[in-house]
Amino acid sequence: MPTAGALRPLGTAEVRLTGGHWSERQAVNAAATIRHCLHWLESLQWIGNFDRVAAGEDAGRPFERAGREFSDSEVYKLAEAMAWEIGRTGDPGLEEEFARLTRRIAAAQHEDGYLNTAFGNPGQAPRYSDLEWGHELYCAGHLIQAAVARLRNHGEDEFVRVARRVADHVCDVFGPGGIERICGHAEIEVALAELARATGEARYLEQARLFIDRHGAKTLAENGLYYQDDTPVRDAEVLRGHAVRALYLAAGAVDVAVETGDRELLDAVRAQWDRTLARRTHLTGGMGSQFTDEAFGRDFALNPERAYSESCAGIAAVMTAWRLTLATGEARYGDAIERIAWNVLSGAAAPDGRSFFYANPLHQRTADAEPPADGPLPHVRAGGRRAHWFDVSCCPTNLSRTFAQFAAYVATTDDRGVQIHQFTPCTIDTEVGGARLALTVETAYPEDGRVTVRVDANEGGSREITLRVPAWAEGATLTHPDGAVHEVEPGAVSVGRIAAFAPGEEFHLDLPVAPRWTRPDPRVDAVRGCAAVERGPVVLCAESLDLPGGDLDELTVDTAVAPVERDGRVYVAAQVHDRPDGWPYGPAPAGGDGKAAELPLLPYRLRATREPAAMRVWLPVA
Amino acid sequence: MPTAGALRPLGTAEVRLTGGHWSERQAVNAAATIRHCLHWLESLQWIGNFDRVAAGEDAGRPFERAGREFSDSEVYKLAEAMAWEIGRTGDPGLEEEFARLTRRIAAAQHEDGYLNTAFGNPGQAPRYSDLEWGHELYCAGHLIQAAVARLRNHGEDEFVRVARRVADHVCDVFGPGGIERICGHAEIEVALAELARATGEARYLEQARLFIDRHGAKTLAENGLYYQDDTPVRDAEVLRGHAVRALYLAAGAVDVAVETGDRELLDAVRAQWDRTLARRTHLTGGMGSQFTDEAFGRDFALNPERAYSESCAGIAAVMTAWRLTLATGEARYGDAIERIAWNVLSGAAAPDGRSFFYANPLHQRTADAEPPADGPLPHVRAGGRRAHWFDVSCCPTNLSRTFAQFAAYVATTDDRGVQIHQFTPCTIDTEVGGARLALTVETAYPEDGRVTVRVDANEGGSREITLRVPAWAEGATLTHPDGAVHEVEPGAVSVGRIAAFAPGEEFHLDLPVAPRWTRPDPRVDAVRGCAAVERGPVVLCAESLDLPGGDLDELTVDTAVAPVERDGRVYVAAQVHDRPDGWPYGPAPAGGDGKAAELPLLPYRLRATREPAAMRVWLPVA
Repeated sequence: MPTAGALRPLGTAEVRLTGGHWSERQAVNAAATIRHCLHWLESLQWIGNFDRVAAGEDAGRPFERAGREFSDSEVYKLAEAMAWEIGRTGDPGLEEEFARLTRRIAAAQHEDGYLNTAFGNPGQAPRYSDLEWGHELYCAGHLIQAAVARLRNHGEDEFVRVARRVADHVCDVFGPGGIERICGHAEIEVALAELARATGEARYLEQARLFIDRHGAKTLAENGLYYQDDTPVRDAEVLRGHAVRALYLAAGAVDVAVETGDRELLDAVRAQWDRTLARRTHLTGGMGSQFTDEAFGRDFALNPERAYSESCAGIAAVMTAWRLTLATGEARYGDAIERIAWNVLSGAAAPDGRSFFYANPLHQRTADAEPPADGPLPHVRAGGRRAHWFDVSCCPTNLSRTFAQFAAYVATTDDRGVQIHQFTPCTIDTEVGGARLALTVETAYPEDGRVTVRVDANEGGSREITLRVPAWAEGATLTHPDGAVHEVEPGAVSVGRIAAFAPGEEFHLDLPVAPRWTRPDPRVDAVRGCAAVERGPVVLCAESLDLPGGDLDELTVDTAVAPVERDGRVYVAAQVHDRPDGWPYGPAPAGGDGKAAELPLLPYRLRATREPAAMRVWLPVA
Repeated sequence: MPTAGALRPLGTAEVRLTGGHWSERQAVNAAATIRHCLHWLESLQWIGNFDRVAAGEDAGRPFERAGREFSDSEVYKLAEAMAWEIGRTGDPGLEEEFARLTRRIAAAQHEDGYLNTAFGNPGQAPRYSDLEWGHELYCAGHLIQAAVARLRNHGEDEFVRVARRVADHVCDVFGPGGIERICGHAEIEVALAELARATGEARYLEQARLFIDRHGAKTLAENGLYYQDDTPVRDAEVLRGHAVRALYLAAGAVDVAVETGDRELLDAVRAQWDRTLARRTHLTGGMGSQFTDEAFGRDFALNPERAYSESCAGIAAVMTAWRLTLATGEARYGDAIERIAWNVLSGAAAPDGRSFFYANPLHQRTADAEPPADGPLPHVRAGGRRAHWFDVSCCPTNLSRTFAQFAAYVATTDDRGVQIHQFTPCTIDTEVGGARLALTVETAYPEDGRVTVRVDANEGGSREITLRVPAWAEGATLTHPDGAVHEVEPGAVSVGRIAAFAPGEEFHLDLPVAPRWTRPDPRVDAVRGCAAVERGPVVLCAESLDLPGGDLDELTVDTAVAPVERDGRVYVAAQVHDRPDGWPYGPAPAGGDGKAAELPLLPYRLRATREPAAMRVWLPVA
């Protein structure tokens, strides 16, 4: 945990999800996704690569390796998911599985700590011979992050020892006087900083700092922008290049800045984040607006149809926003986490946890066919239908580890009390100033806007309980334990007492979750003249299945009529046109009246869960 | 020339450009572009490949080939440009150059007629071993088209004989019972159909018909859509896949349909063309809206920033529209030719004829740096600045051959008279019903809207002279020889007399070329809420150089104020905003008043001829 941030994160034992969407997501993750990923990793031999390295080294023979050069990282991300899940439930079967996986991974480790199935083994390219694209340090980083999860949920074990030997090896090879370069895919930075926190070993933090500071030194060949090797992190103005790389790097930079007290670096990342939110982020919170290079696009280039908005970029953005929350104590970063989690992450996995989106565009122009069920799908394929697996299959295991640890994003403490960042049924049982404070949060949010916080135990004195108030929640109210109701401003609201909260006392935050029209900044060219509907943090969309005629190109909506809610579904006033074809440019916009229709919307995260359909979030205004 | 179409095209001797834009384009092409292309083709050894094949075969040694697998076609397209230019001016220096080039090409031809420097020579892959990507028939097609140009402008010679041997070889190898497949890049179809017309040899037409009909039989591996091998030409509803391939194929299909009297095939291409214009074409006439695969995008997916709108696709669209003009006699196809010629083609070449755009997007979001001057530029690079040459350098030679033959697109005849399709100063001296009819066209169009047609000689009787009236020309008038003025409808207007026109008689078409606001079809998502300014057929654009503050993202325009013209430049009423950054989505569109400004526009074709600048055709409406 950060040693110098404004807020302290809570451990697995301190926050427990007790129901609601995220608890269900965790249950599906445990019951389906982890097994699903294990199945694919075994059947594609991506775990088998470790066995073959172990055996191949014994026999001195080269072997045929399966998967892409970064496939080890999928095994590690799944190990991380398992570590969090074991921490959450103590599942003994999963613990056995984890131990088996640990043995197979450990068997492939070299004497000096090096561990990678794609380089440095008989018949393979030498270690670190392709830093641009080899992903060796990226894979090492995911191994280390899994080890940190294991340390937090279990404590030292063979998995952790393997990862520490890897970390020591990385420090030996990439320290001062060693290979003074970086990996083409950031990840080792955030991992080493986390390991330094979890172990107290300063050497790891120093190595993380070195990697952060080497970005921009152009030690990689060409295309520095893609790798964030074009400009030093502290000099950049906005996130750029490959989105997942950029955001993993930003997360690592915040960790290093906090741990080393580097205010300049922290301020640089904060400014980059703000500008990225203002100019390079989709309504869903999705980042990385261009397919080419899976990269951040230019300012305001936010085409919903070509929104790449990779699931992993959403995860990386949550990681970054969470670190900014901890570093600054500002609640607003939680708005981004909420938006990304509800729209990008939860929607990237099917409700059954067995199929996934890699890219998450906000506009699917035509109904695509089902992806083939019998093999991995090319990852660049966007929209359409979720796939069981991809050739580059970073997203399924990444979603799995994120859902498994979701409780960690719910609340924090500081010396004055507890801060609640995400609204979900849970219990919080922690210490504030050395004395126990236990709370229960009850809510049906975001279906319902009421969030109730009840004090279960308070063994200390004066306490402050702070709740994030989302930026969209104009008109939110707080009902104090004494029954007084006050309107609260977006940002955060704190409830405190000179005297201690008494057990059983409760208060309520009421958030206005009625569906609302949302308009884009006029500088966003691609959705000018459109509106979207949001309901609380949930972005809604229209699917062609629900439109008379089924052609979303012929739809306009009337934003003068507020969206209505009926039987749990949101409806907007729409018109369905039947416009003739012809040269499409002329003195007056074609159009005229269409046929009035009431169009039902559905949460964006639930798109593509029925028949194949065209879909749009941004609806043209009549 | 077509034997069964509605209209007859005119030969080089029958239409002469006597001034104006296209005459200047031809002069620059002759003085600069042809030499420029020759220089690059020599220095990159793309012509040298022919010498090396000739020498290599003699010595029986393999050789190192320069350029991509289709580089022969650049040599042939330049030969075609030279052939048209020789026809236009009779330049003896160029005739000598053409003869030298002919000898070098001829020396590389195999005994049996096969001619290609990338396949079938010592050390190379066998002939026709990669029909998907080998481009052998594509290259042969361009050789044959150059030979047709030579036949039309000179008559039979060694170049023509080489091409006929190639054509005979293709018929031998790909005829019934031979390789019953197609080339991955259409071109051989239109070339063989043209050669059949120029030589009267039915075998070539039959082979063209076979290639047309084989499309959609899925004889190529995978990705049939890209090659138009997914669906038979006569069954398709819209142009799709790689745009240049699709349009060359469409041009060939029209030729085959006309020559074989295949009404079904002609109607199919007409319907595809209409739907493509209505749903898949940019305001400039640019076709191929997606960078991926240089392809047609989905209906109404017309993002101006990612408009690929390849220069060669513009040329191919002109070829197709011209064939539809001849086939149907309908003037409206000339609207598309005019739009593409003025905006895509003329703008793709710099005014000095020595640098070129490969892609022609309608929005350049930021000012890009100059391309490097010391080597070919990757062709996928869009917008920004014109380049001297590309790795895939199809556009410069293609533009050169198109400018050289531009007079051919100006007018046609039929049994009743002459049809004038493009308005440019020229003389037309032809026969109608076996008797001479000579006209002079005088105009400063499109700067000025008056087109004057004067009868210089009329040795026949009753004659009809028809002029295209562009679709945008509401309120156009015709002033008859007797001084009577009539308003004319967009489409076409015919001037006829029972008695013959007398020499010296003239009449005028007056087209309303004042700058006008143009709005997009509401289904075009990417430019909703925007307007553009057109002046006659010329699309205008704004460059950041002319905007106070220089940030086109902060611009809005007021379409309630008509564009004004002053000192030859068009101005619109604009506002320049200074909007704060923040989360860019909310209940009300940000905005408010900006600072009023008068924004000068310039013709799109003249973009990027000053300092690097951001540019946009579609301007957000306040």
